[in-house]
Order: sequence, then structure tokens, then C-alpha cells
Amino acid sequence: MKTNKMYEAGDVRVEDVPVPRVQQPTDSVLRVVASCICGTDLHPYHNMESHDHGEAMGHEVLGRIEEMGEDVTGFKKGDLVVVPFFYADNTCPHCQEGWTTSCVNGGFMSGGQAEYVHIPQAQGSMFKLPDEIEDDSPLIPSLLTLSDVYGTGYHAAVMGGVNENTTVTVIGDGAVGLLAVLSAKKLGAKKIILMGRHKERTDLGVEFGATNVVPERGEEGIAKVRELTNGEGTHVVLECVGLMPAFEMSAGVVRSGGVISRVGAPQYNDAPVGASFFGRNITLTGGPAPTRAYMEELLPDILNGTLNPGRVFDVTMGLDDVPEGYRAMDNREALKVLIRP
Amino acid sequence: MKTNKMYEAGDVRVEDVPVPRVQQPTDSVLRVVASCICGTDLHPYHNMESHDHGEAMGHEVLGRIEEMGEDVTGFKKGDLVVVPFFYADNTCPHCQEGWTTSCVNGGFMSGGQAEYVHIPQAQGSMFKLPDEIEDDSPLIPSLLTLSDVYGTGYHAAVMGGVNENTTVTVIGDGAVGLLAVLSAKKLGAKKIILMGRHKERTDLGVEFGATNVVPERGEEGIAKVRELTNGEGTHVVLECVGLMPAFEMSAGVVRSGGVISRVGAPQYNDAPVGASFFGRNITLTGGPAPTRAYMEELLPDILNGTLNPGRVFDVTMGLDDVPEGYRAMDNREALKVLIRP
Repeated sequence: MKTNKMYEAGDVRVEDVPVPRVQQPTDSVLRVVASCICGTDLHPYHNMESHDHGEAMGHEVLGRIEEMGEDVTGFKKGDLVVVPFFYADNTCPHCQEGWTTSCVNGGFMSGGQAEYVHIPQAQGSMFKLPDEIEDDSPLIPSLLTLSDVYGTGYHAAVMGGVNENTTVTVIGDGAVGLLAVLSAKKLGAKKIILMGRHKERTDLGVEFGATNVVPERGEEGIAKVRELTNGEGTHVVLECVGLMPAFEMSAGVVRSGGVISRVGAPQYNDAPVGASFFGRNITLTGGPAPTRAYMEELLPDILNGTLNPGRVFDVTMGLDDVPEGYRAMDNREALKVLIRP
Repeated sequence: MKTNKMYEAGDVRVEDVPVPRVQQPTDSVLRVVASCICGTDLHPYHNMESHDHGEAMGHEVLGRIEEMGEDVTGFKKGDLVVVPFFYADNTCPHCQEGWTTSCVNGGFMSGGQAEYVHIPQAQGSMFKLPDEIEDDSPLIPSLLTLSDVYGTGYHAAVMGGVNENTTVTVIGDGAVGLLAVLSAKKLGAKKIILMGRHKERTDLGVEFGATNVVPERGEEGIAKVRELTNGEGTHVVLECVGLMPAFEMSAGVVRSGGVISRVGAPQYNDAPVGASFFGRNITLTGGPAPTRAYMEELLPDILNGTLNPGRVFDVTMGLDDVPEGYRAMDNREALKVLIRP
């Protein structure tokens, strides 16, 4: 079968490898119906040191069950399922509290940019989609976002405590930022300021519910958000980037007593959360989204067509074009690449 | 009148100064019935550079109204009131959301270690106590803790989201830490681990509701707390110290998806809240407690004798002995010094 492996920064190759098989009784194997390239995949695309074997890429997967280990029950071959970017048994003490990304038997998914993919902890990870959905359903892109980007944007908003009484700033106009906007709107926020400077993306953000767009960054961006909020900043900041300048902007635009909710993986070790941060009673929250825990909640709006988070996919490619897909996302020619094997 | 001023680290002097008068229509002047020395006062006691004029000390005040500006209504001369350590108008946009420590007209109280004290923003700051309470009531010490230490411990617990389903670690056995224990118990926590190594203090912590005491610190202390919690840590950590080792212990004992709630003013600028902190979905919250906002809620338990937070005062002194009181608190001979002018 075809798969995509990364050998070092900038080097993604389509290869022919054996179809994966179930190895543990808790595993499954899916035939991939749709997967995608994630903004997170661009980190190794920039930084990966040379590998002999290549890393199988792709942590967002929607597919049909091809094979299951004997411990996996309640599913049948051919079922359409979506899988979170972090597999989990969904029964350990952390999973029981909803923190599937801290599962003691969990780990990051990989190998989704392929024809077939191996799913560890299949019982806890696979989320069954309705039988009537065909492989070519127009809902597929939106359903795939439950794996990562929609659940991640929603996690930001939930951890931030967004509701109808909170004003919100979203930092970052990537797929997660745009779906954080969608999520804030879903949770009732009436003022949603999107900080981003790529007009075609922020235009989609406005369609998703952003009430204001601030393309400026740094001190200028902070001043602009404050201008829009009587000088006070917003109750919640959804930080969907992960770089220190985004952290600093978050601290600059958050209201006293407010919350900075991070879902962009921090590319820094330390951050200025000392006296001045503390002095304003700012809360810092967020982390890798336990997307499995949100699937039940987010599914209905997709099925009934109310929300269409799949609009973040602006390019669709086959497996042979995935290396080109990385290049296009890296150059910001593509917002997010959908892969149809 | 007598007041206490600090001139530099280690140098507190009793002085004779004029009785303060109302200067603005929003001011008042109180005759001090009780005040105290705060752990926070020990920071300048260690670090203050030499001053010509001396700093009037004391930010925790309970007293009777002596004089009021014309804009202060609903009170009368002689009313017994308690005042938060941070005065506030209680009407600005931040106060309206409960963040009185971010009041646009607010500031830190000072001058309470004296016979009379000047109260800015008296209307928003003074909280009237019941008429029947006499100056020598045994409730006075507990009522005084509403100004700072009880409200601060309670703020830690509230911001941490303590309830009957959360396990709690309290770091620090000073007055705030002990009252954080009391607050966690009040909010229903069933497991409360107190990290502190002064037995006479942790003994009071046990009376306040701590179920376990861990005197060890650093990695050893972290291991002990994890041992008490199936290796998982507690849902909430109430960090009542403010030093980096306490932050590091907090990160070590908090459960995945848990909350570190800080009320010890951070004596650091940056803290390690990068990838590993983020990776476990840890929330960092807390700040200077808006104690005015909690007074209504905390008063009844004191009045009916259910809770006695005033037990943190283990020494009572007159104004002449305040310099000795600083020395005793600094040497940990006293937990917290009550001042009766």
C-alpha cells in the first residue's frame, strides 16, 4: 500500500509498504477514507533531523474498519469511524475524567497519510459514525475535523470558559484558530475578535462568527484589541499558535480576571507568568485536546448541517501528492490539505 | 497618635504622627480596633532599601468609623467595619465582575498598624459588621481575617475549583495556607494534603481539615503526595508560598487536567509552563484575592461560630510591640501577630 514518510526536514516521500495487520488484541486496522496534513506536521517538516527509516506521518484519520483484535467489541468490519489524534483506552483514571490525552495506555496516532492505518487501543479510540454515511458524503471533511482541529478549537473555547457573557480574542488564523472562532460562536460568545493577517483565512473566520478582525501584531495588535474593548481586553483569549509572541499578545489583550486558553503547542519552555500576570488574576489553561471526549457533543451539528468545520480544507489531494501538499501548506498556499487515498 | 513605619529592611519604628483626616469626599478615617502583621510585610522587612520618611505599615484593618467624606453613604460614625487589603470603588467595570484588586481607582491599603487609619474609596471598601459586635468580642480576630488571609485562602480554593469531588494539596503552612485548608474543607474537599514542616502549624491545619500532612519538600515531597494519590497527584494545588520551589512542587503534585491556584505573590518572573506543563492540560490560576467580594459569603460561618479562622493569630500585641512582632514572625516564633491598639 502507499504511505507517506518523512525522512528529514522538507523530505516527505510516498512509499510502498505492507498493509498493517492487527498485532495486539486491542488493535484495529482501518482502510483510510480521509486523512489530512496538520499544522503540527509542519514542525518536523521544518526541524526533523535525518532518519534512516522515515517516520510514518498523519495523526488525523477517518476510515472503515478492515480488521479488529479480539478485545475490540461493539464494532463490525466496514464500520465508518473517526479516531482522535491521540489514541487512548478511554477507561484509565485520566480518561474517566475526560483527559484522554493523558491516558496511561495512550499515544500519538501516526501513519494516517496512507491507504491503511494501524489503530492501537481501538476500543477506546474509534468513534462510530452513522451507517448511512458513504465514503463520498459531503460531510466527510467536517467529520474528519473531529479527529483534531475542530475538537482542538472547541477545547480551547471550553477550557477558556467561553459563554454568552464572555468577549473572546482568537489568536491565529490557521485551521485551529478558525475552528476556535466557530467554537466560541457555538458557545454563545457575542464578540469574537480574530487576530490574523491572511485575508482569505480571516474572511472564513468572519463567516464562522468572528465579529472583528485585527491583522496587526505585537503592541499594535494589542492596542487595536483594547480599542475594541473599552481599553479592557477580552475575558477569554484562545491562543492557537504556540509561539512566545502569541503568548505575549495573549497577556496583552486579556482582561483582568480573564483566561488565556492555549491549544497551540508551546515552542518555549518558560513564560512570563510572574508578578504582573498574577497581579491581574489571569488564568492560563489549555493543552492537547482530548478530542475523543468531545465527539459525541460535536457530531449532531455536523450531521444536521448546522456547522461545517470541514470548510477549513481548501485543497484535496491523493496520496501521491502529499509531498506537494506539505510544500503548499508550508508556503501558506493551502490552509489545510485533505487527503483522499 | 501612634503608628508603625518601616525605614529599611529590619527597621520598624513606633512613631507619633498626627491623626489622619478625610481628604477626599470618598475617604473615611477609622479608629483601629484590630490590625495585624502579614506574611507579605516580611518581604520589605527583608528587602526594603533605606527610606527617609518611612513607610506606614499595615494593610489589614478592622475599625470603627471616626470620620467620613460627604460621598460616603449608608454608614454612620461608630460603625464597625472591616476593610480589604486592597481598597476599591466597587463600581468600576472590573469591580462589577468581582475583580476588586483590579479596580481602576483602587490601591493597596497601608497605615493599619496605628491608632487611626485613612481609607480611600471608603464606600466601596468598608464592609459593615453587625451592630452588636463589641470591640472586645472574641469574634474580632476571625472578622479581621476577612480583610486578607481568610479571603486569600478562600480565593485560592475558589479559583482552584475545589468541590466535594476534588482532591487538594495545599503548599505552605503560613496563615494563608492554613486558611486555604479551611476553605477547601468548607467547599467540600474530602482529601486535603497539607505540605508544611512546622508541626505546630500543620497541627492547626489538621484541625482546620487537612487529612494528610507532608513535611518533605522537593522531589521527596512530590513522591509522598503521589504515594497518597495512587501516583496521580491531586486535582487542585493551592500554592500559598510564591517561591519557585513551591511552583515546581505544585507542577509535580498536580494531576493531569488539574489546577494550580496561586495566592502566594510570585517572587519570580518566568516559570516553566511550556511543553510538559501544557502536555498535561494543567491550569495555572490565582492572583491577589478580591477579598471584598467574598466578605458577604464568609461572614455567616464566623458569626455563628462554625468556623474560627482567627485561630491563625497566636500572638497579640499593642502598637508599642509591633517592631518586636515583626522580629517574632520573621523568626517563626509567631505564626501571625494580632495588633490591638
